[in-house]
Amino acid sequence: MKIVVLGDRDTALGFKLAGAHEVYAFDDTPLEIERLKNKLKELVERDDMGIILITEGFARRVELPDVTLPIILQVPDKSGSKLGEETIKEIVRRAIGVELKR
Amino acid sequence: MKIVVLGDRDTALGFKLAGAHEVYAFDDTPLEIERLKNKLKELVERDDMGIILITEGFARRVELPDVTLPIILQVPDKSGSKLGEETIKEIVRRAIGVELKR
Repeated sequence: MKIVVLGDRDTALGFKLAGAHEVYAFDDTPLEIERLKNKLKELVERDDMGIILITEGFARRVELPDVTLPIILQVPDKSGSKLGEETIKEIVRRAIGVELKR
Repeated sequence: MKIVVLGDRDTALGFKLAGAHEVYAFDDTPLEIERLKNKLKELVERDDMGIILITEGFARRVELPDVTLPIILQVPDKSGSKLGEETIKEIVRRAIGVELKR
């Protein structure tokens, strides 16, 4: 089964390089939040989903379905404590050997 | 990079089937907690580690290293709210089509 990530663009990139099988990135606009809700619904209905990681910021915006499987876990995003910008840069550097400049 | 899980036997099995690349199972004995500490240290030093998921119960027993990468996330274990016995059974059922009896 698959590990999938729903998050902002940087978090999605970080987790993709960190090993997630599929990632979906969303902006923080009403239209995108609708797109996120639809994607979450679609993923939960798929039968190859093992784990859905969703950023805390987005998890607050959508209603997380109460299902046993997939396992839905909230993860910190860029603004959180764990997955800061330094972490994303370090993941990218280790995974593809390129230094991210902003 | 890889997604690795450190947890009790059932959680480890569940996450392995849910898509984690490597899982390591430990019992809740002093000797096993030492083994867990050593494994965590070894994993953090590897350069192919993307995400380490560790059960909350075990996370309380070890000192989690303060590193940017791998991303270390705590996950509920069997006694937690998310990853109950029903979830494990459902993961096993979906992944390998076998009903777990206890």
